[in-house]
Formats: sequence, structure tokens, C-alpha cells
Amino acid sequence: MRTYHVAIVGATGAVGSEFLRLLETREFPLASLRLLASERSAGRTLPFRGHAIGVERLTTHSFRGVDIAFFSAGGARSREFAPAAVQAGALVIDNSSAFRMDPGVPLVIPEINPEDILHHRGIIANPNCSTILMLMAVAPLRRLAPIRRIVVSTYQAASGAGAQAMQELLDQTFDVLHDRPVTPRIFPYPIAFNLFSHNSSIDATGYNEEERKMIHEARKILHDPALRITATCVRVPVLRAHSESVNVEFAPGTRPTLEQAREALEAFPGVEVVDDREANHFPMPIEASGRHEVLVGRLRYDLSNEDAIDLFLSGDQVLKGAALNAVQIAEKWMHLVSV
Amino acid sequence: MRTYHVAIVGATGAVGSEFLRLLETREFPLASLRLLASERSAGRTLPFRGHAIGVERLTTHSFRGVDIAFFSAGGARSREFAPAAVQAGALVIDNSSAFRMDPGVPLVIPEINPEDILHHRGIIANPNCSTILMLMAVAPLRRLAPIRRIVVSTYQAASGAGAQAMQELLDQTFDVLHDRPVTPRIFPYPIAFNLFSHNSSIDATGYNEEERKMIHEARKILHDPALRITATCVRVPVLRAHSESVNVEFAPGTRPTLEQAREALEAFPGVEVVDDREANHFPMPIEASGRHEVLVGRLRYDLSNEDAIDLFLSGDQVLKGAALNAVQIAEKWMHLVSV
Repeated sequence: MRTYHVAIVGATGAVGSEFLRLLETREFPLASLRLLASERSAGRTLPFRGHAIGVERLTTHSFRGVDIAFFSAGGARSREFAPAAVQAGALVIDNSSAFRMDPGVPLVIPEINPEDILHHRGIIANPNCSTILMLMAVAPLRRLAPIRRIVVSTYQAASGAGAQAMQELLDQTFDVLHDRPVTPRIFPYPIAFNLFSHNSSIDATGYNEEERKMIHEARKILHDPALRITATCVRVPVLRAHSESVNVEFAPGTRPTLEQAREALEAFPGVEVVDDREANHFPMPIEASGRHEVLVGRLRYDLSNEDAIDLFLSGDQVLKGAALNAVQIAEKWMHLVSV
Repeated sequence: MRTYHVAIVGATGAVGSEFLRLLETREFPLASLRLLASERSAGRTLPFRGHAIGVERLTTHSFRGVDIAFFSAGGARSREFAPAAVQAGALVIDNSSAFRMDPGVPLVIPEINPEDILHHRGIIANPNCSTILMLMAVAPLRRLAPIRRIVVSTYQAASGAGAQAMQELLDQTFDVLHDRPVTPRIFPYPIAFNLFSHNSSIDATGYNEEERKMIHEARKILHDPALRITATCVRVPVLRAHSESVNVEFAPGTRPTLEQAREALEAFPGVEVVDDREANHFPMPIEASGRHEVLVGRLRYDLSNEDAIDLFLSGDQVLKGAALNAVQIAEKWMHLVSV
């Protein structure tokens, strides 16, 4: 079996450390593993399969001999260093938003559009976390009937803003419980016992960047430029799983039955239906955290629109929303190029 | 000026104690105040305008001489004791869901349908908190153009389940921070750093009771039985202000401009527009807590539907969502019967 030389850029971050754990546990066919990070983290060592691996400083020369480079160090670093990785012959799987809407860069959820992988020119982009989680629930339904419009409201965890933001949620909560003043550092507003509109920049349409990503990335992944989506993205005091309330409107007269929808979701890899009306048991972030599957439930006919279905989902933002999806892209690519 | 003999049923609860504070600070024309509660709380005293008022045990004989009785002790107590209060000549303003959908009982938000007050037969119902907050944002827009459909997702605070639920959120959060196991008592699932579908009973439609209240109460208050609403109600780890993501669809071709919408909201009593795109400053529960106004923002044209507008709101669940609205009903009634 062929093995691969792999590099992780941003190995010490929230998503980077999840990359390590996934490569460790999935028996990824590694020939070697190189950990790259900014000067600040270089020199540290991280444990991997019983060994200690040193973290090297990221430079344009870091990618010699690398087959696959996972980037998860922000858009600026991806823009600066991904071209060097491609130049060196690596396949870049980029977790940032830097290249997602580039027409020459496939944007991939392996369960949904794996065939796009083959059109890469060195870079494959990993979609935004909220987009991935939404589409994992929407894609199976879309195989049943054409979807016309989606109205989505998110309940996004602190992890989407990184490990420091998760720590800020814990620290602020501690301060509130001890009646001490809260001083936001990562987020613009207190996150403990609070929630706020996603703190990304708002354009002339009034949509913030997270919402625009959900709209435009979904269209690209589904190859459906006419798909109508409105999104409201909200940060909530939860640690690492995002939830979403999704209203899915099908083409007039084509709405599937709830039974069909449920079967399609149950049969879809990476989705677990959690929908127990008797026990009032539905997707929750604490149950989605650490899970590879996106939990989907609250399936019901929309009483306000005979073509629509309502649902609610929770999925681990760091796993399927980031590191897991990227590793799955690599695995799918290995499979596609080996056959 | 006429003064009134007032009783509060459920005076020791989360909403009951807010009634006391409101009557204290609003210079409500009180002739006397009687505090009523279950046997468990009877005998306690509560401070009011510098005096200590004893809490009496609630019986069917508690209402002799009472002009206005605020009920906030749950549906079962309202059903049992409200008829006795009416019999004794009191106007009952009931915070429970017991009588809300009774055709003979007005369901009132004073800023929206004050005229319904005059049709009471002894009982006026205070609407569900999520319904009140939603309609405070929707009613001003409805004066601009007919509304066809609403898609709403809620972010509901612990306070909606009472003072004990708020304490449970604090206690569980403390336990999580100290790495101790969490044992839910009031809510069915952990609420600390988690969220879950509103824990009210689900019927054959798949909607839970909270969602059905939002749909049916909104139609009654607006006198619009054809109004189409779909709601997804979610409990979040926030103490006492609810938030809602609301998509409002107008009749085809009638959507107001954002400027008109904003002006209508700004001019509406009880609403404050918080909508600063530059500063990313929008309604947040910590800023809505303790406020009488419902905060409304994130106003934008829905990019997926040329007839719709998106918005986000936060409002104090215990105040405008409960006690304040009930006191305002009493004040409006006093005004209407005095002219």
C-alpha cells in the first residue's frame, strides 16, 4: 500500500491538534508527519503514536517531499504558504476561507461532491463549518426532491473562533459565577451566559461574512448557483458543537414524506438521526461533541408552507466542521487516485 | 384618582417577585396589596415600599375586596382559583396558558391589541413570553404591509422555566467548571454549555407546545387566523432574556424598505432598535436583561426572498415576556375604564 508524507500547518491550534488525533486513530497511511507552526510555537514537541514530534517553523521551504499538506492556520498563512506547498508537489487541503470561492479550487464535502476532488490544481478547500453541517442534513433530502430555499439560524459554539475563545468562555463563566467583572479579549462582547450575532464583518447587504459563506459555499458545493438561502449566524455559550435550525423548502409539490426524509438521512454516511418525540430527545451540542456524525432531528412538516420541512441539527465544529472533513478529503483523494 | 386593591398569586416566584418590583416602581395606584402563594410559601414576608407584607395561603376566599388579581402560579392554580377571583369581582390577569386560547378571554399585548381588553368577562390572559417578544417586532412591520408568513427560531433563557431553572443553570455551570458530574433536576438535559429543543410536549404534528403557542397565540392577538408561522423553540444557557431569529415574509410586492421598517420599529412604544452594522452591535440577552424594551436589530432584506426581511431580537423574558406586560394590561384597563 502506498504511504504518504504529510504536513500539518497550524499543528498547535484547536483544529490542528484534532488533525493529529485523527491521523493517529484512523490508521492514515503515513510515511512521515511534519508539524509546522509559527515561530511562537516552533520548538515545542507534540505526542504522536507514542513518539514526540518536534514542531518546526513554517517557511516556504517546509514542503520538500510532502505529499499532503493540511493547512489550518488562518487565511493569511494559507495565502502566503500554500503556493509554496503546491510548488513543492504537495496536495494542499486548506481549512481557511482563502481559496474556497476560487473557481479553480474544489470545495469538498466527501459525502456530497467527492468527484470535485479530481479537478484540483494543487489545492482543495475545506468548507466553512456551519456550511458543512447544514449540507450534511440538506444533501440527503436534496436527493429526494429539488430544494428551492433554505432559511437557517445557527447556534454556534466558541470553538469556531479557536482554542483561545473556548478558554475565554470558561474563564468568563468562572468570573460571572464569582461576581467578578468580565473583560472580553477574543470575542467583542461577553460570551458567558450571553449570545450575539456572529462577529464577522457585515457588508452592504447586512449579512455578515459567516452568513455569506453559508450562502455562497453551499451553492458551489451543490453546483446549484440558483439555490436561495438566508442565514442568521449567532454565537452561543457552548464549547465545541454548532447547532442549526433549518427550514428546507422543496420545489412546489415535490416535498418528500417525513418517512422518506428520515430514511434518506439514516442512510446517509456521516449523519445520525436523533429524533425521539416521546422522550423529547433531539440533537444537542453536548451529545454531538466528539462525535464524527452530524446529529439531525426535529423532523416535521412545516405547518406554514406545504412544500417545506423543519429540522434541527448539532455537529462537532472541530471534527466534521473542520479537521475530520479535511482528513476525509485526503482519504477520498487517495482512494480516487489509487483506482 | 381611583386606587385599586391588588392581589398577586404566586408572589414568591420569578415572575411574582418582578410584579412586586414593578408595582413598587411604577407608582401603580394601589389601595392595598395582598400576596398569595401555596402553603409552602405562606407565612413568609416580602418587602414592599418600605413595609413587610406577609404572604397568605391561597384559597378560594382570598379575593374578597380585590379589584385586580395577577396570577402567576402555573396553569393548574389558575384553573382552580381564577373563577373564585372573578366570582369575587376581581379582574384576573393571568400569566399562565390556562385561558389563553379561550374565545371568551382576551389575549393582550397592550401596544398591539389594547381594544380587546374591553371584551373581557373577568379574565384577561397574558400571552406566552416568546409570542409577546416576537409580536413586539412583527406588529410595527405589519402596519406597513400585510404579513404572510413568519419563520422563527428561538434562543430561550432558563428563566422561562422559573427561578429554580435559573439556579440550575448556575449550579450546573459551577459543577462543569469544577469537573463535577451534572445532574439535571428541573430541565430534562444538562443546560450548562448546552442547548436543547424546548422541553414541552410534542404533538402529532411534531411541534412542541411552546411552538404551538407562538403560532396560535400570534394569530389570536393579531386577529389573523390565516397567518402562517413555523417556529423552532430552543433552550439556551442564558439566564433571563429570550432571543429570536425572525424571517418575516410580506404579501407579494408589498415589502417595506428597510428604512420604513426601521422607522416603524423606532416609533413603536416598547421597542428599541439596536442595529449598528459598523460596530457589529445587535440585540444581546445581557443587554436586554432588566430592560423594559424589546431590542430589535439585524434588519436586512432577505436575499432568498424578495418579499421578506430578516431580523433578530432580545427581550427580558420575566419583564415584557411576563410581569411587565401583565402590569401594562392592568394599567391600560384602568385607563380604558376611567375614560
